[in-house]
Amino acid sequence: MPEEEQIVNKEEKENVVYIGKKPTMNYVLAVVTQFNNGMNEVTIKARGNAISRAVDVKEIVQNKFMPNVKERSIKTSSEELTNEDGTKSKVSAIQIVLGK
Amino acid sequence: MPEEEQIVNKEEKENVVYIGKKPTMNYVLAVVTQFNNGMNEVTIKARGNAISRAVDVKEIVQNKFMPNVKERSIKTSSEELTNEDGTKSKVSAIQIVLGK
Repeated sequence: MPEEEQIVNKEEKENVVYIGKKPTMNYVLAVVTQFNNGMNEVTIKARGNAISRAVDVKEIVQNKFMPNVKERSIKTSSEELTNEDGTKSKVSAIQIVLGK
Repeated sequence: MPEEEQIVNKEEKENVVYIGKKPTMNYVLAVVTQFNNGMNEVTIKARGNAISRAVDVKEIVQNKFMPNVKERSIKTSSEELTNEDGTKSKVSAIQIVLGK
């Protein structure tokens, strides 16, 4: 994925929101928009330090915008990244599935 | 809890590890120590930006130190904090329960 990360990954399924460095509310609105566009399930994905923001997005969506949206699952994993100098490093990842 | 946070909260149950600003490995070793001291279950708790580190701790404990330790549950919530000037603000929190 290009450095200038996209909020909603077009190539993949429509309902995945990748958390990056933008303000939290950008992602909250992206999730809410997906649900308003008729999606029954939206997945929030994040890695590294963005994991905290992913949890913020979930909590704000559920508590402030869409109380009827429930948590379906939260999964964590470790992913391997290849650095610019070719070395490999591990980063944690989270996947939060919300559903109506 | 005093600013100089404690890794393991003595007053509370022994098996809760609070993630703060210390290096990740401090918390990994705290979790591993709890299990080695005979605990069957250890809870990792974190708020705000420390949530990412909590997920790191979980992943490192499971992948590098104790492959037999399984995830029992991951819960997120919103907590209200009172700032120094008396105003209130919300912060996300995570609770990860690991078990043998």
